[in-house]
Amino acid sequence: MTNNQPHITAENIAECVSRFRSQKPHVHCITNSVAQNFTANVLLAAGATPSMTVAVSEIGSFVEMADALLINLGTLDPERIRAVNIAAERANQLTKPWVLDPVFVQASTSRLELAKFLLGKRPSLVRCNAGEGKALFGDGFDPSDLSKLKTAQVSALALTGKEDRVVVGEQSMSVLNGHQFMDRVTAMGCALTAVIAGFMATEEDASLAIASALVLFGLAGEVAGKRSNGPGSFAPAFLDALHNLNQDEIKQGAKIR
Amino acid sequence: MTNNQPHITAENIAECVSRFRSQKPHVHCITNSVAQNFTANVLLAAGATPSMTVAVSEIGSFVEMADALLINLGTLDPERIRAVNIAAERANQLTKPWVLDPVFVQASTSRLELAKFLLGKRPSLVRCNAGEGKALFGDGFDPSDLSKLKTAQVSALALTGKEDRVVVGEQSMSVLNGHQFMDRVTAMGCALTAVIAGFMATEEDASLAIASALVLFGLAGEVAGKRSNGPGSFAPAFLDALHNLNQDEIKQGAKIR
Amino acid sequence: MTNNQPHITAENIAECVSRFRSQKPHVHCITNSVAQNFTANVLLAAGATPSMTVAVSEIGSFVEMADALLINLGTLDPERIRAVNIAAERANQLTKPWVLDPVFVQASTSRLELAKFLLGKRPSLVRCNAGEGKALFGDGFDPSDLSKLKTAQVSALALTGKEDRVVVGEQSMSVLNGHQFMDRVTAMGCALTAVIAGFMATEEDASLAIASALVLFGLAGEVAGKRSNGPGSFAPAFLDALHNLNQDEIKQGAKIR
Repeated sequence: MTNNQPHITAENIAECVSRFRSQKPHVHCITNSVAQNFTANVLLAAGATPSMTVAVSEIGSFVEMADALLINLGTLDPERIRAVNIAAERANQLTKPWVLDPVFVQASTSRLELAKFLLGKRPSLVRCNAGEGKALFGDGFDPSDLSKLKTAQVSALALTGKEDRVVVGEQSMSVLNGHQFMDRVTAMGCALTAVIAGFMATEEDASLAIASALVLFGLAGEVAGKRSNGPGSFAPAFLDALHNLNQDEIKQGAKIR
Repeated sequence: MTNNQPHITAENIAECVSRFRSQKPHVHCITNSVAQNFTANVLLAAGATPSMTVAVSEIGSFVEMADALLINLGTLDPERIRAVNIAAERANQLTKPWVLDPVFVQASTSRLELAKFLLGKRPSLVRCNAGEGKALFGDGFDPSDLSKLKTAQVSALALTGKEDRVVVGEQSMSVLNGHQFMDRVTAMGCALTAVIAGFMATEEDASLAIASALVLFGLAGEVAGKRSNGPGSFAPAFLDALHNLNQDEIKQGAKIR
Repeated sequence: MTNNQPHITAENIAECVSRFRSQKPHVHCITNSVAQNFTANVLLAAGATPSMTVAVSEIGSFVEMADALLINLGTLDPERIRAVNIAAERANQLTKPWVLDPVFVQASTSRLELAKFLLGKRPSLVRCNAGEGKALFGDGFDPSDLSKLKTAQVSALALTGKEDRVVVGEQSMSVLNGHQFMDRVTAMGCALTAVIAGFMATEEDASLAIASALVLFGLAGEVAGKRSNGPGSFAPAFLDALHNLNQDEIKQGAKIR
């Protein structure tokens, strides 16, 4: 099995972002309490519509209204675990895209078990970093050679790090946009996964959807890096850039290969 | 039944804001986890004092200490539902103002039931948008003709949208301050309701209290809109303006009719 | 019993901050939902690594991974209360520093009982203000004469207010850095306690650890105060300053006595 690069251009990505903004996907987020506010503001700045409830009694209704679902394991309590289950099943029934973010899955056994259980429900995408990927996918997971990742394990993968990798079936590509301050603002990765979920709802080609989200996110980071004096002023500048980046800036700024 | 306009001037509003700032009302907020941090910062910037616990074991003590109570239905779990009940009853016993924000009440049956149940406990005010109002007040609710809204349904209403409407008994008025970025920052409406609750504690005339909160909020948005490059930089500029707006700026900037 | 001043210089503090930044302590925070996001961003800006779960099933694993533990009583629910107990005991078993922030402990009986119970488990440090200290330590607590505070009551105390006091055993000192806007941004005190916890993990001398955290925090506030127009722009400027303050600025800016 060899991984090929999908035929995606910077123009495709700029158009995909434009479609996202005009369709304003509603992303329902079951995410941790640290990330909720920032994730909502990131979705709003990018042009999407967030909702955030985790209550078991109403999670089904919210998934029905939404265009895509994010499940983030950042903070777990019994109510959230039940909500996560109901939401994933409802998304599958309605064939809506849902995305799993197994935050810190290497840190506790109960978290790893839940993540593996959810993996069995076939999320549309998993977004993780190298450490989380190793814990979740086991010995066969080699960040430097993702061709070994079996499609049976996951439909699509966004592996983030210095270089972001997009793996869909036997195809893979890299996105190189980003800025160092993105590691100094909490919930950046969580918010990224929510944005990817929105792109999965507005673009059928999974590689293009994921790459577009990664380029938009990373490019907004680059713009913000130039306009800020530290991680504090970086965060509002990042939201501004998510909102303001135009077609030309995306075409010229996208770093894909 | 015809709605008359209350006799409220920009000078009245500037004085009401001044009284709010000198009295520093303590607003206890039972609000959703997305909105908690921003709501606390909005109250602090406006000159009030926030508290935020939702624990059943101590919610009564906090309501006793507070000058006003906010109940926001943004995220519901069993603990919060019990806390909401205890808090509303304690506020009624102590005749302290309490304000209901039925966020997204059209989205689930369980949320609508809880909102209607709380409406029966006679909140001092309901703050909602048109969609939430229709779900909550039923067929008789016409945003373009609020004279049909029965006083039996609600003592006072702040209906927010492009034009904000204040309805108290048979009187109504409009506030037109605001900025487009206010829709691109999460929890803006939730924070507004908390500020209104504070004004209800420092001003007996409900129309004046609500209008003052709406003017202060919307005017801070206008100032922030001029000083920001997008929704990210808008949020801190908005808090700055809430803190800095002086009497003259309020008198000259208030757009009421 | 007389309190002596520990021999701590501005140079010691600058070196202690430098060590903190190079060691990047992992601080696990059981804190209230209002403070979680800001606390994580403060730790990241200061150079530490935060984690935030409160789930009973995994709190033990997170304490094992962490270098220090923060227990903040800001919002209490049954799950958090159980997590707090497990975490404090695990930290004691592993002799890792843990720090108690008894937020608003004067406001409810259940909160005071929990705080006293935790005090009996011998936290490495308590960080509180005068009102919280009086509720927690009883009649013997005199903020203007901390020499009366018995070592049997608490190993180390950081009493914050206009002038911050550091008390360790029979020694005490003051830190005078800070800015008025720090009271107008929610969770500032909560985030400070998290930073102190990190310093307790990277510096054995408790007085030096606490004083270094207080100087870094207060000095960042002073820098931010000069670069902001209100409490809204103060918060990002504060995070920038936490990240950017260099050795010379700390040596020259530290106000200790």
